[in-house]
Amino acid sequence: MSRVHNFNAGPAVLPLSVVQELAAALPDYQGLGIGLMEMSHRSKPFEAIVNSAVAGLRRVLGVPDDYKILFLQGGASLQFYMHALNLALPGEGTDYVITGTWAKKAYEEAKRCTAAASVWSSKATNFNAVPALDAITPRAESVYLHYTSNNTIYGTQFQGTPKVDKPLIADLSSDIASRPVDVGAHALIYAGAQKNLGPSGVTVVILSPWALERSRLANATRPGGLPAMLDYALQSENGSLYNTPNTFGIFALDRMIAWVESLGGLSAIAARNTDKADRLYAELDRSAFWRPHAEVASRSQMNVTWRLPSEELEKRFLTEAKAANMVGLDGHRSVGGVRASMYNALEIESVDFLVDFMRAFEAKHG
Amino acid sequence: MSRVHNFNAGPAVLPLSVVQELAAALPDYQGLGIGLMEMSHRSKPFEAIVNSAVAGLRRVLGVPDDYKILFLQGGASLQFYMHALNLALPGEGTDYVITGTWAKKAYEEAKRCTAAASVWSSKATNFNAVPALDAITPRAESVYLHYTSNNTIYGTQFQGTPKVDKPLIADLSSDIASRPVDVGAHALIYAGAQKNLGPSGVTVVILSPWALERSRLANATRPGGLPAMLDYALQSENGSLYNTPNTFGIFALDRMIAWVESLGGLSAIAARNTDKADRLYAELDRSAFWRPHAEVASRSQMNVTWRLPSEELEKRFLTEAKAANMVGLDGHRSVGGVRASMYNALEIESVDFLVDFMRAFEAKHG
Repeated sequence: MSRVHNFNAGPAVLPLSVVQELAAALPDYQGLGIGLMEMSHRSKPFEAIVNSAVAGLRRVLGVPDDYKILFLQGGASLQFYMHALNLALPGEGTDYVITGTWAKKAYEEAKRCTAAASVWSSKATNFNAVPALDAITPRAESVYLHYTSNNTIYGTQFQGTPKVDKPLIADLSSDIASRPVDVGAHALIYAGAQKNLGPSGVTVVILSPWALERSRLANATRPGGLPAMLDYALQSENGSLYNTPNTFGIFALDRMIAWVESLGGLSAIAARNTDKADRLYAELDRSAFWRPHAEVASRSQMNVTWRLPSEELEKRFLTEAKAANMVGLDGHRSVGGVRASMYNALEIESVDFLVDFMRAFEAKHG
Repeated sequence: MSRVHNFNAGPAVLPLSVVQELAAALPDYQGLGIGLMEMSHRSKPFEAIVNSAVAGLRRVLGVPDDYKILFLQGGASLQFYMHALNLALPGEGTDYVITGTWAKKAYEEAKRCTAAASVWSSKATNFNAVPALDAITPRAESVYLHYTSNNTIYGTQFQGTPKVDKPLIADLSSDIASRPVDVGAHALIYAGAQKNLGPSGVTVVILSPWALERSRLANATRPGGLPAMLDYALQSENGSLYNTPNTFGIFALDRMIAWVESLGGLSAIAARNTDKADRLYAELDRSAFWRPHAEVASRSQMNVTWRLPSEELEKRFLTEAKAANMVGLDGHRSVGGVRASMYNALEIESVDFLVDFMRAFEAKHG
């Protein structure tokens, strides 16, 4: 079986070994005579899967013991609303760092139920940068500060955890488990799984004790209380089993975490991701033929974005890349040009293949 | 490979042929060199999957042309809140038929955002009955009437579509695609997929033009508008792709629909389900040893519930059934005793196996 070089932005490439493990579990899970998708979410085997996924994430990400880990549905897009609904009360100030499309959507959803404000934005330069870690000044009256760790569309990434004197909320959808992160410095982390943690349809939420306390306060204070499915504290009390979760997706996530550990955990994964990113950025910096979108200090290791000298050349590049067995390289319409997404499961060989292709293309058209 | 007799209430048994089709698609979808879970939700192959699933459901369920079909996340539990939020305005009356745990949860979520009332309840008899189709009287001031077609926990089922002069909202989670249903008589239908339509993590929502209009009105009227992910009209405008959906689950649903069609569609499926239910209820009616929970006129074809003469015998029954390769027969704690769930994919052989087991058990202990 020959697989393409998969540069999709998400859903994205997964390790073939994990994919095969999932396929084997579908008709018969661990020789129990029952398929993975056909087991009750309240059965002992599935309980073991959830517990393993929670313990694995806790180990690999270094989640503090007093933080809770949830597996919800609805993607980061539902979290855009849910985090604000739970963590702030009507009229309370909440601060947003606007580094791209998804950051702006989180801000817009938060405006529905809190007094949200933008405290930093790179919109004027088409989101080609994120702020330096000490460059954000939250408002005195705000309850928390929200940021988007990696901006999939624009190819920018915070180079670490922002330093602010406020509870910190992070959307880690497109770089969770790609490098070590200081979970304990965050009040809440959320991430759709479909980049580094499995298929689409599962959202990871990591809650500090403060976040849980705020959720209980919101439930007691907001008119009508919190809808059950949007109530962090209720979901936490039920260990992600308030209702039927995406059982297949949680098993996939558990296997992805095991794969990360088999490679040596986050420091090994980060070294591998740095190596991949260095190879591609070296080519982008080698010739003025390539026009990288992101500022150097804001470059993402997960999504790399660049333009070519003309739209005609971009079109030709993408057509020839597709013919050469590479998929997912079309830039998002907000930036145009080319985007290469290089999540954990993308092999170094695929990056080298792309770089070789780029050199040949530049030699022909540069 | 020997598979157990799977009487789980959900997630539940799926056809082995469909499970194998899904397993084959995981590493390589249709020879494209890319796995099903690794394709972009905006790619042409996935667009074809969504279109096929929508067209298939429309065909099989007989969904009117001017109704929309959505694939969302969060299960019926999120719909308990979402339908009320979209279809009624604050202070407007909404009516609920309380036939069990899930009906009550829908009612409780609706109370958060509408003036909801219970207009019928079988709570006094531990939900052993549903109303006759013409026995429900909605309140004059109510906007709609909500009912739960099949009550998984108690083993009761509406024998058709209730006759009321109000827009009708139905939770079809546990009997969708098990028998013909008059979709056009409903203003809104929703259903978690994990009984008859695939794995958990996908929710089907079928919207009438009236429901879409009400959703737009709610968005324009409710303070803050509707959260994007809870906005039927917005989801509909984006064809279920407002954000990344559960791509694996939607493919599974599409294959389940194809399987239903391969068996001859809903009338053939209904005949098969009636046959299965008849065999089990005949045994329950044969001897006073078995004590069926549901009233005869309210019996469900999907979930059959009964008690035995003592809790000790029930315990023994369940232990011996498990030893005989049958899983999922434990009654829900709200009823106790035994529950056999017999969704579309359960083979007649499994029902016969259970009935034979029951006869032998009764002969020994009766």
